[in-house]
Amino acid sequence: MEVFIEPIARLINEFSYLPGVGKKTAQRYAYKVINMTDREAREFADAILAVKQKVRFCKVCGNFTEDEVCDICKVRDGSTICVVKEPKDVIALEKLHEFKGVYHVLHGVIDPMNNVSPNDIRIRELLQRVGEGEVKEVIMATNPDVEGEATAMYIAKCLKPLGVKVTRLSRGIPIGSELEYTDEVTLSRALIERKEI
Amino acid sequence: MEVFIEPIARLINEFSYLPGVGKKTAQRYAYKVINMTDREAREFADAILAVKQKVRFCKVCGNFTEDEVCDICKVRDGSTICVVKEPKDVIALEKLHEFKGVYHVLHGVIDPMNNVSPNDIRIRELLQRVGEGEVKEVIMATNPDVEGEATAMYIAKCLKPLGVKVTRLSRGIPIGSELEYTDEVTLSRALIERKEI
Repeated sequence: MEVFIEPIARLINEFSYLPGVGKKTAQRYAYKVINMTDREAREFADAILAVKQKVRFCKVCGNFTEDEVCDICKVRDGSTICVVKEPKDVIALEKLHEFKGVYHVLHGVIDPMNNVSPNDIRIRELLQRVGEGEVKEVIMATNPDVEGEATAMYIAKCLKPLGVKVTRLSRGIPIGSELEYTDEVTLSRALIERKEI
Repeated sequence: MEVFIEPIARLINEFSYLPGVGKKTAQRYAYKVINMTDREAREFADAILAVKQKVRFCKVCGNFTEDEVCDICKVRDGSTICVVKEPKDVIALEKLHEFKGVYHVLHGVIDPMNNVSPNDIRIRELLQRVGEGEVKEVIMATNPDVEGEATAMYIAKCLKPLGVKVTRLSRGIPIGSELEYTDEVTLSRALIERKEI
């Protein structure tokens, strides 16, 4: 005899596909759904389906949108493009309310170990955008890890012939942290990239 | 301008209703759904709806079931009833593969502070089951907290006139723990309920 009846076992299984969700957490989520009203459960299920039906990628920048072109591309200054790995990086930057330009989402980074080559991410589309001539600066905002750095370097090299300014987010000691607890790679980078004050 | 487009914001909101899920975790779950195939998302949504449509309560014991009477009530020895607070307690006990009797799920415990009186939980149904005469023992397996103990005591008092044996799960020092780290209430209980060896 199974411990859980089929519909509950099935829902627990579905929840366990979510990132970082183990058996126990999936069970708690399933119990929560069982205790929802019919309406609440329907709204939950509808939200899952709606996100698949309505969310697509902006044909300009590759970010999430409900339309053909996203709201950012529609209204913002196109002379500065910030290049990121994933849509969630756009969210992280938008939360600052600092950047007034547009984005370009690569949907990945060059990663030969995992068979991701420059052709597998949206580099061609970026070169095309810049090639149209209105772009003055491209800010590389890929993650400061091996793949992110390599991707930024590769793209910078491709962009050079187009005569556009290419910049990179500064790397260094995080604000509020202490030298003592900063890892060696970050610390040595902060030393190399020291700025005159 | 909103940071998230509507369908994504809505899904994040739905996920944040799950127990222990904050904004950040809800976002991660939403991204996972966006990256699911249409089929995977549909199966997820279906599982949520199915659990609401198919899961009901056994009319005998109150546990989750797809039928009118649950599989446990259908086939197991009805002379011993184990009384628990919630369906998930049945799961915890069933995992042991030790108990061969049936259950009675109260769907709550007596809790005057939260306006839960004996009439609000399935005590009447328990007395009726026992009153039918085939029950020899009722094991009180409510939690060892104030409400659980009070509920067990109350039910034991109600059952006494029916001439049935009423027992309670033993309380004491958890196996594998150390005296030094056992809380005082548990330790004093273990002393009071000491057994001859």
